[in-house]
Amino acid sequence: MQTEKGQSIEDASMQMIENEIGNHDYNEKEWPIVRRIIHSTADFDFASKNRIIFSKNAIESGIRALENGCNIVVDVNGVIGGLNKQNPKDFKNKIICNISSSKVMELAKKQGKTRSQVSMRVAASDMEGGIVVIGNAPTALLELIQMIKENLVRPSLIIGIPVGFISSPESKEELCNITQVPFITNVGRKGGSASASAIVNALYKLLRSKLTP
Amino acid sequence: MQTEKGQSIEDASMQMIENEIGNHDYNEKEWPIVRRIIHSTADFDFASKNRIIFSKNAIESGIRALENGCNIVVDVNGVIGGLNKQNPKDFKNKIICNISSSKVMELAKKQGKTRSQVSMRVAASDMEGGIVVIGNAPTALLELIQMIKENLVRPSLIIGIPVGFISSPESKEELCNITQVPFITNVGRKGGSASASAIVNALYKLLRSKLTP
Repeated sequence: MQTEKGQSIEDASMQMIENEIGNHDYNEKEWPIVRRIIHSTADFDFASKNRIIFSKNAIESGIRALENGCNIVVDVNGVIGGLNKQNPKDFKNKIICNISSSKVMELAKKQGKTRSQVSMRVAASDMEGGIVVIGNAPTALLELIQMIKENLVRPSLIIGIPVGFISSPESKEELCNITQVPFITNVGRKGGSASASAIVNALYKLLRSKLTP
Repeated sequence: MQTEKGQSIEDASMQMIENEIGNHDYNEKEWPIVRRIIHSTADFDFASKNRIIFSKNAIESGIRALENGCNIVVDVNGVIGGLNKQNPKDFKNKIICNISSSKVMELAKKQGKTRSQVSMRVAASDMEGGIVVIGNAPTALLELIQMIKENLVRPSLIIGIPVGFISSPESKEELCNITQVPFITNVGRKGGSASASAIVNALYKLLRSKLTP
């Protein structure tokens, strides 16, 4: 889906990031992911102050799941917007987002929760072995963590990078205490759906380079 | 579409931004827009280093256009993802995004352009009196500026806040030289679809508070 001109702009941007980043201590699998986040946000903070955290084997687990055609459950449509659509087509990954469903709206109102929070529980049966991507709502991430503690779901990877002022840094700190499921997250308030999509797009790139070295 | 809990989190976030922002020199119509960008990005840079620029009457022109049921042409689906969907429904604004159309892909390959760039020219007939929102691609913004110089289109407002390393700051500087069409943009590399959606959502908020003071 990338045109030649689009690709050449991307390559030049990545080169510019390489030139400006200086020293960093991400490893060779982590760096292409972090670089893609910086590419999507023009925000070098993700290399330092708002550092990206990878749990052990998170990248490998995510790549393997994508390769096996896992589901991708996302909290908001903005995450879908930022995805390169050819990837899930090629690897038969189904993308699931329930935020706009009337069932979720109804439950959220009844239970006094946010829609994104409820949408996580509604998607429980779609999460087994899948990747759950949270780019917007700390409430969704906290709900997912609770579901994991309840042994209700066991995804292959959580990408938890919600943005915001209320509970966002805290939700990510809680994610870092999870040992049952691999995760990618970051420190602090920043994040968002563009960063979340960037991580997924970068995982597909790593998968493709694994298949065609 | 906002639940009670969602609204209370939003209110608390906005209050937190108010508490931390300190002095700024945005006026009373500009500030709710900038505050919503900060809310969507957790990035206070938009109040200073990556300052938001409003051309004269940009906000008024945008609000009037939305109220009159104008089209909203966007460069990427990520912008749509971040929009509060109830607003365009209530004010009968049609949202147009051609980035994924096969016609755009074909033309882009043939002309050696990016898809977002071509998608602007393809949407020319939809732009009259409308709002054009560019959250991703500097090439789209540069194409739009060219179309305005050619007297091909005359939207009511341009929201030009693409993110990136190649041509992004330059495209916004060029937009600032346009006098034919009101615009909202920013300084520097930062921006993105979440910021672009935030501006549109904030314009709707201003419109609603004008209608029900």
